[in-house]
Parts: sequence; C-alpha cells; structure tokens
Amino acid sequence: MAKQSSQTKHNSIDNTGFSPNSSAEGGRLTNKDGRINLRKTGIPFYERISVYHSLLRMSQLTFTATVFAIYTTINLFFAALYYTIGVDKLAGTTPVGSFIEDFLQAFFFSSQTLTTVGYGHISPVGFITNVVASLESFMGIMSFALVTGMFYARFSRPKAYILFSSHFLIAPFKGGRALMFRVATYKNNHLTDAEALVTMAVHVQENDKTVTKFFPLTLDISRINSLALSWTLVHPIDEKSPLSDYSEQDFIDSRIELMITIKAFDDHFSNTVQQRTSYIQDEMIYGARFLPMYARSDDETYTHLMLDKIDLHEKAELPQ
Amino acid sequence: MAKQSSQTKHNSIDNTGFSPNSSAEGGRLTNKDGRINLRKTGIPFYERISVYHSLLRMSQLTFTATVFAIYTTINLFFAALYYTIGVDKLAGTTPVGSFIEDFLQAFFFSSQTLTTVGYGHISPVGFITNVVASLESFMGIMSFALVTGMFYARFSRPKAYILFSSHFLIAPFKGGRALMFRVATYKNNHLTDAEALVTMAVHVQENDKTVTKFFPLTLDISRINSLALSWTLVHPIDEKSPLSDYSEQDFIDSRIELMITIKAFDDHFSNTVQQRTSYIQDEMIYGARFLPMYARSDDETYTHLMLDKIDLHEKAELPQ
Amino acid sequence: MAKQSSQTKHNSIDNTGFSPNSSAEGGRLTNKDGRINLRKTGIPFYERISVYHSLLRMSQLTFTATVFAIYTTINLFFAALYYTIGVDKLAGTTPVGSFIEDFLQAFFFSSQTLTTVGYGHISPVGFITNVVASLESFMGIMSFALVTGMFYARFSRPKAYILFSSHFLIAPFKGGRALMFRVATYKNNHLTDAEALVTMAVHVQENDKTVTKFFPLTLDISRINSLALSWTLVHPIDEKSPLSDYSEQDFIDSRIELMITIKAFDDHFSNTVQQRTSYIQDEMIYGARFLPMYARSDDETYTHLMLDKIDLHEKAELPQ
Amino acid sequence: MAKQSSQTKHNSIDNTGFSPNSSAEGGRLTNKDGRINLRKTGIPFYERISVYHSLLRMSQLTFTATVFAIYTTINLFFAALYYTIGVDKLAGTTPVGSFIEDFLQAFFFSSQTLTTVGYGHISPVGFITNVVASLESFMGIMSFALVTGMFYARFSRPKAYILFSSHFLIAPFKGGRALMFRVATYKNNHLTDAEALVTMAVHVQENDKTVTKFFPLTLDISRINSLALSWTLVHPIDEKSPLSDYSEQDFIDSRIELMITIKAFDDHFSNTVQQRTSYIQDEMIYGARFLPMYARSDDETYTHLMLDKIDLHEKAELPQ
Repeated sequence: MAKQSSQTKHNSIDNTGFSPNSSAEGGRLTNKDGRINLRKTGIPFYERISVYHSLLRMSQLTFTATVFAIYTTINLFFAALYYTIGVDKLAGTTPVGSFIEDFLQAFFFSSQTLTTVGYGHISPVGFITNVVASLESFMGIMSFALVTGMFYARFSRPKAYILFSSHFLIAPFKGGRALMFRVATYKNNHLTDAEALVTMAVHVQENDKTVTKFFPLTLDISRINSLALSWTLVHPIDEKSPLSDYSEQDFIDSRIELMITIKAFDDHFSNTVQQRTSYIQDEMIYGARFLPMYARSDDETYTHLMLDKIDLHEKAELPQ
Repeated sequence: MAKQSSQTKHNSIDNTGFSPNSSAEGGRLTNKDGRINLRKTGIPFYERISVYHSLLRMSQLTFTATVFAIYTTINLFFAALYYTIGVDKLAGTTPVGSFIEDFLQAFFFSSQTLTTVGYGHISPVGFITNVVASLESFMGIMSFALVTGMFYARFSRPKAYILFSSHFLIAPFKGGRALMFRVATYKNNHLTDAEALVTMAVHVQENDKTVTKFFPLTLDISRINSLALSWTLVHPIDEKSPLSDYSEQDFIDSRIELMITIKAFDDHFSNTVQQRTSYIQDEMIYGARFLPMYARSDDETYTHLMLDKIDLHEKAELPQ
Repeated sequence: MAKQSSQTKHNSIDNTGFSPNSSAEGGRLTNKDGRINLRKTGIPFYERISVYHSLLRMSQLTFTATVFAIYTTINLFFAALYYTIGVDKLAGTTPVGSFIEDFLQAFFFSSQTLTTVGYGHISPVGFITNVVASLESFMGIMSFALVTGMFYARFSRPKAYILFSSHFLIAPFKGGRALMFRVATYKNNHLTDAEALVTMAVHVQENDKTVTKFFPLTLDISRINSLALSWTLVHPIDEKSPLSDYSEQDFIDSRIELMITIKAFDDHFSNTVQQRTSYIQDEMIYGARFLPMYARSDDETYTHLMLDKIDLHEKAELPQ
Repeated sequence: MAKQSSQTKHNSIDNTGFSPNSSAEGGRLTNKDGRINLRKTGIPFYERISVYHSLLRMSQLTFTATVFAIYTTINLFFAALYYTIGVDKLAGTTPVGSFIEDFLQAFFFSSQTLTTVGYGHISPVGFITNVVASLESFMGIMSFALVTGMFYARFSRPKAYILFSSHFLIAPFKGGRALMFRVATYKNNHLTDAEALVTMAVHVQENDKTVTKFFPLTLDISRINSLALSWTLVHPIDEKSPLSDYSEQDFIDSRIELMITIKAFDDHFSNTVQQRTSYIQDEMIYGARFLPMYARSDDETYTHLMLDKIDLHEKAELPQ
C-alpha cells in the first residue's frame, strides 16, 4: 500500500466517474487501449450494443469477413427460396435433378440478382419467382447502401493516432523529480491545440477498508499549440504533488493507475479527436530520462521524427 | 400548490425558453423522451417538417416500411406507364390480353429496370419505351443514392444512449435531504466530460394567476470526467435550494417538473452528444436511497455494471 | 443622417469584418438571407467557386435539373462515340442508315451502360466498343458515387430553420423603450443553448465623409437554454444604448442596419447551427408590441405555437 | 542573427510543440501550405500512413487516376482468372486461340461483372466461373461503396479557403510601426468568428549554441465576427513586442519565421475550419502599406472584393 501521509495532505477528487469503493472494482480501471474495464448486463444484448460503435471498433479483417458472411447468408437464403419454388422457374437453367447442381444454379441466379449484375442468361419465370427476384434486388441495393455507409463511417472516423511511450519514467527535473511519459502522432495527421489530462487512482487503506482515491496530476505544460514533434508530458513531483513523499520503494509497493486523456483538433478531420490510455505501477521506470527522438535531416531541409525511439531513455540519478 | 415562501426567497430565471404564463401551457413542458411538448401550426405542413429530422427519429421498422412503400409506388407508376405504352413494346414478354398478367410483366420489367438488375429477358423496344426505361433506371440510381444517404445518416447519428432512473428520490444526504436521480450509459459507448443541467419548473399562484417559475437546481457534482460507471446526480436540499422549505406533503401537492439535459463527448463519434428528459412530481419517491448497481466481477478482473438495477433503492429515514 | 450625439458618446467596434469606409460599400451589408452583399473577382471563376458550397445552397429543383443535365450530356457524349464507331458494333441493333434512329439506338445502349442496367439485348462487339462501354460503366458508377455524396451532403447539412419576424419593433419596455424582434424554429427540430448577437451598422457624417460605425446592441437576455417556444429578443434603449437619443424622426431619417446572428446546438444533428439575417430602418415599426404567438391547446395537453402569428403586434404608446 | 536585447526582455513560450533545439531542426518549421516540415520513420509505412488523410490531401487528378488504376488492376486480375479457367467457360465468347483476343474477351466480361452492368451476351458457365463472377460482382459493389465514401469525404471536407498575402509588411501604424499581412476568403464560403494566432520563431545565439525561441505576436484585433471583406492582421511593434528593437537591418539579418493559424466557423459546413501558413524573413517588405482591395460596385448595390489585389501595397515612410 502506498504511503498514507502524502495522500491525506492532498485533496482527492470525486468527479472521475469511477467509484471510490475499491471492493466493487476488478482489475485496472482503464485498459491500455483506453476502454473502461467494465462489462454491462441487465438489459438484452441487442439493446446493449450500438451496432455503430461495434462496427467502428472492428478490425478491417473482421469487418470484411462480417460483410462477406452476411452476403453469403442472404444469397443462401434466396437460393433456397428459388430452389423451393423450382429451378424450372429459372429460364436458362436445366434442372438436372441433382440437389447440389440445381441448388448451385439457384445460388448463382441469386447472387446475380443480389449484386444487380443480372446477366440474364438465367431469368425468372412466373409470378412468385419474379416477386422474389424483385425483392432480392431491392434488398441487395438496400444492403449495399448500408455497407457503403458503414465503409464510410469506419473510414472517416476521427481518430487521434497518438503513440504513447510504453513506460512512464520518474526522471530528474529542475533539481527534483518528475513523472514523465511521451507521446507523438504516428500518422500523416496533424494535431493542434493538444491538451492532456492526467488523473491518478490510488488504492489506499482507510479504516480497514481499501478505497480508491483519485488525484489530478498537474502538468508542467498541459496544452500545446501544435503536436508537431514528440511531446514529453511532465508532472513535477514537488510539494504540491500527491506523490511528493513517495520513495522508490513506495512507488514499487503502491497500487496506482494513471489515466490519461489527450484531446486535440485535427486539421483534416476538422474535428476534435481524443485518445485515452493508462499506466500502472508495473509500467514505471524509476530513475531514467527520455532521449530525443527527432533530429535534423542529413540534407538539413527538414526535421526527422523517429517513432521507434519513443521509448528511448537512459538511466539518470535522482535526488533523494 | 407549492409553498410560496421558498419560491420567493430564491431568484427564478427567465432564460429557459419556456413561458412564465402557465395559462398558455398545456400538460408537461418536456416529454420523457426529451422532446418539447409542443405543436406548431401556421405554415404549410411541408415547410414545417424537416424530412431529415423525421427520418432520423423514425423507428427502423417505420423507416424500412417507408422506403419499401416508396419503392413499390415508383414501380407501380412505371409499370402503369409501360402498360399504357403497350406490353408489345417489351420484347420477351407475350401479351396475353389479361390485364393482370400483362400488368405484372410490365411491373417485373419495371422493377428490373429500377434496381438496374436488367436481366434482359425482357427489354424495351421503340423510342418511348426506351426513354421511359432510361428515365426509370436514372431515377432508380438517384433514389438509391438518397436512400444510401438516409441509411448512413440514421446509422451514424450521434446519440448519447443514456439510461435514466424511472424515479427521482428525496434521499438522506450529509445530515439533510437531497434530490437524486441516476444515469448510466447502456451501450458499448463511452462518454467523457459529461455535464448535467437541471432546471425546475414550478407552477405557483401569484396575484390570483398561475404562473410558471423556473429555478436552476445546483448539483453537488455537475460535471464528471468520464461517465464510466453509473452517475448519481445530487441536488442538496439546503437553504440555497428553492426546495428547502418543502415538506413531504408540499412535494406531493406541488406541480413541479424537472427538466434535465446531459451533454457529453462521445469518443467514437468524436462528437458532443446530448440527451434530455424530465421528471414530474408523480415520479418522485420520498425517503429512499439508491443501492449500488455495479460490483467487482467474480474473477476480479473487471467491474460489472448491472443496468437492470438502475432503479434499485431502499427506504431511508429523512431528517424532518 | 442619424443624430450624432449618441453616436459619439458610445464606443463603436471595429471587429465586425466590415469596413468603416462607407464609400467603399454598396447597398446593405448583409442580405435578408444572411449572405454578405459582396462579389468577388480577380481569380478565375473555377477557383472562386466551392462546388460544395454551391451545391449546398441550390434549391432542390435546380439540383435535380443539374444532375439530370449532366446525366444527359454524358449520355449524348457516349452515344456520339458509339455512333462514330459504328452502330454495327452494337449487337442487337439493326443499322437502318437513318441518323436519328441509329443515334437513338446508340443513345439507349449508352444509357443502359451508364446506369449499369445492361439489359443485354444490345451488347458491345469488338475491341473499341467494349473499351468504351467499360469506361462508360466505370464512369457511371463514379458519377453516381459522387451524386450519392452530394445528395447526402445536401440532405444532412445542419441548418437552424429559424423564422424571423418581418419587422423589428420599437416597443415599450420597463417604463422606457426597447428594440425588439422575434424568432422561432419552424420545423420539427429542437435547438438548445441558443445565443444571439446583434450588431448595428450606422452610416454617419464625420468630417464631411460618410463613415460606417458599428455598435454591439446588448440584449436583455442574449442566451437561452432551449429555443422551445418563440423568443423575443430585446435591446433596451436606455442610456447605455447607442440609440438612446433617437426620436421617432431620427429612426426614420437614419440609415441603420441590424446584423443578427443566432447560434444554437441542434439535438438531432448534434451540431452547432447558425443563422443570420439583417434588418434595415425601413423594416421598423415604431410604437408597437408583439402579441403572444402560442397558447394552451384545447385539450390542455400541449402548447400550441402558431408560426403565422410571428409578426402579430398591436400599436403601443411609447414614453417620449 | 537577430538582436539579442529585445529577445531577452520578452518571455518566450514553450508550448508551441516545436523544439527549442535549433540543431535538431532542418529548414523552416512550417511550410507555406501549413504542413509541418517533418518526416516520420521508425514504424512500417502502412502504419505510418492514414489512408484517409492521404486521400483527402490528394489532388482531384491523382485521386481519379488512383481509382482508375485500382479499377484496371482488379479487372486484369479477374480477367487472368477467367482466362486461366478457360474462355470456353464464358458462354457467348468464341475462343479463337489467340492469347490477346481470348484475354480481351475475359477482360470485357470481367469489367461487365465488376461494374454490375452485366449485359449477359457473355455469361459464366460452370461452378468455378460462376463463383469467381459472384465474388467479382460482390467485390465490385464493395469497392464502389468505398469509392463513394471517399468521394464524399473529399468533397465535404471542411476547408477554410483563405487566401494570404504573399508577403508580410512592416508598415506605419499609429505613429509607430506594425507587422501586417492580409487575408480574405476566396470562395463563395462565409466564415464567422474568425480568430488568428501568430507565433514567431527566432533562431538566436545563446551560450555558443543556436536555439529557437518562440514568441506570441499579439494582434491589434485578433478576432472578428465575420470574415466578410479582407482582413488585415496587425501586430503593433511597440515596447511590448519582441520585435521592438529591430531595425530594418536587424529584420534582414534575422532568421525568423511567423507561424500563423486562422480558425473560424463556416456557415455551410457548420463546422470549425482552420488554415495555417508561415512567413519567413525573405517574405518581408520593409516600409510599405496595403492598399484597399474592395470598392463599391458601379451600380452601388454591392461591395466588390478584388482578390487579385491582395498583395497591392505602396511604399511608406517608417518612423525610425
């Protein structure tokens, strides 16, 4: 458990949206990817799921596979319908009596209808077949309208594309210590007006009960005009910090979690984007400082940002 | 009618957008679903309706039915055109003289043209039929362009997905009383920077006239960083509250309405979302407190939020 | 010209984006529909036009006509190509030697290709025809992709749908006078957090030159939580007002222009919307007050907003 | 190198997102088009690229060419598949044995399938060909869904369309000097609530090392209600300015860079738009003033903004 003294000197906050009741919480509060470590129950699954949010979060592979699976399922459904009505109602096919071959002909007609390619070498005959084909092509267009929308939604979803250093450091800073971590944008995007918010959750003993206390960690610079190069976020561990009394051992023994939110304006999306992550005490390196991750290019015409060096640090002596 | 004394001690506000003239208002001001209880007249229906807003609010069933009805209507319209021009102008059909059968052939050709499936076993012959078919396929593509847009608009519309407790409670709070209600997000969405605004409308007698007065209800915490778990909103009924003098009977006799707006930032939409609702005095439980609706999961690796317990409360003694 | 005394007592502002040089300005500064009364030259037309902005502003009729005209033009272009290549390269057609009939066959094939309906009773033969047909169907799909986007953009464009009273009034207010006008939303939209900004431009003589001075007109209430009913905007003409010394005749003789911006948050668009308009002195009614434009419904269950009464007013005596 | 005295009197800022370490930077910090002069390495190319951002930035020509190249590639791929399966499996074609002609037939069938035009004079025969054709038409629809989304994204991307003067001037201003540049919107868009932020980077000698210092340049008016006409941005070079001690020669000898961001609200996009640019000392004209770029129209009914005069200036005497 973390040292109590520094915790009581400082005011904890209760507007984090998390509960001070440690016994109600399991695991870390926020996952590395920024999602709250939480499951919801009590209402039916389909009411609990925002299809939109799910589709946005899916990997591209899962998304494509999902769309393909739905396409095949609809195809099979309509093929079964045509087969039931009778393959003889599909002009251009020759019913051979074999289930597989007849079904396949129905399936191929179905797929030509669903995609509206409609070659016409197979064509519907009679009232029912025509109605089903008409419905299928309508449904095809509707589905592809939906898929177009989903593709666009996934594609155009504003994202921050921020890379975080794997660890946070306790580094020397202005004769004292500071908690530091580093971020950079890793795509060809450009963020302006970037703002960072760091909240620390600490599990402490209070009257024989473990409670979670929340402290805002003030940053040396919490807002920058442009997230152009890398940005090292610095929380000075001075007397105003809830970590001021922590020795190296205190840090190691503590159960803390840093919850980080970075909000910025993306030029190209013309939208505010936000990314969250968290660090726990196991992701700390005590006594280290970050080394620069950018340099002048060889031809001196531009600046070179090396993203693989975001974790680059060296050991550093800390004042006791 | 509610007690007058507390109403006059406190300053009412006049920037709610609602009228202080009770005799001009009918029923509650804001419906449970957050819509203003209002009808507009005086300009033609089509000018008064934003098709976009209507389509966004429709249920998925109504929307699909609407699209299908329009599809069928256009189909029927063009089928009638082809029938009028003459089914003999559709190569591949055999005019049988029966209205129904001939019309059906025209209808199926029409639907194959509208969806651009165009099998070709029926094809247009002659100038007029070709022109109509050309127009229909153009119109088909235009309509489906529109429908694609609508689907996407409905699909991607930023929504808050906030669940409100069915009742508000008058609960014990720091030795006194407080008005409380509870919210939680019920989907796999995540809201940050959530802010709540509560305005109370009270109908009171003033010089023999019933007037509506509006009071802001200050919240103990009105803004949280993350709407992660449930959030209990607390208005302390202290001497600064316009409800400070209300006895249980005053609450029951009163005609009050709480109008609530919650605004937050949705990570995935990267947009501000907002949800409104209202409570009236009949939706109050006097002397009760909420019980927790979340707990540590059995395997202690995450927190479990039980949405069906949002109304869970127990009776509680209130100070007099 | 307006009275000078009141103009000089008050500080004019210079951050309106308009010029104080009256001789450089023609007509009113802002049109009734909120557009700046301005034309731009000096760079080529196509660089000066944002196709997107133009398409958003077009009426639905103009838009549909534009799309149809482009569709027909592309069709004609490709028909000419097929005709030039030779109608004998379109299997299923019978070249009759008549220009019109042969061209029509090429045109119909073209439209079947562009819309991808592709019946197939006419089909391309030979290398060149096939290449052209392939390009045309590709182009068809690209164009309809574009049109889909445009439809959606027009459709989903956030608009405020605010109705303004035709006139502004000089009305009695708290024993003095006030400048008033009235707004209401006229669609099934709902605006929250509405804010109004009123700037007055006055053309005054200064050292034998006509200059335009700009004054902010402070409003009694400039921000409301919800634009639910109608909203009467009130600028009190007290000693702090630049209009304080204006007699009825001064108003009539003056050359003033009120430029109004209303900004609000739309629940369904989840977006900030903005609408602008302007009033000039000819749109003033001196000595009048607005009458209510809403009432309780007959069955007392809702409030009824009568949009055709937005201009409803009665004569009113003004203090001198 | 610039004069040191003025640099030390004023506080530099360190929240620009750029580095004070001049030796790590190459060339200018911000390019004329507002992009940071920076390259990123260290993670694989495909992780470093946001396809969305790239597609948004492409010229229309590059974009169309890219789409066409992808279309042709997919076509060739499927044509090769059909050719490998055998042209005899495409009913309606006559295998002639010549590679080119057979491949072309496969290619044309492929393109008719991909665009879903599906004339049907060529149609798939047998299981494998049908499956491939079914996949191709599915893929066609998916691709065109994607392209529709991209078209819309490019089309609807909020842009500021702001024109900057080519140079900044040192001009006479209120008996002293001021740094000025000029902007105007050049399209039929309208910006409100425009705000400008100017940061100056100066490379100075400090302890034998070249460091980059950043200073905010305060503007006489930094925010205007409406970017209606042109807007001349004015930084007064008074005692509060970090440029106060600069003589003409100092300006010429200095290595400064002005980084400019203009943020505004676009009425039609209903969105905040932002544009950036930079000026370096070589883009300065010392001793000049801007001449008006707008005038009353000949018929006196509107104001005329001449965009080709944005750089129009005359020589002007400066106080020493």
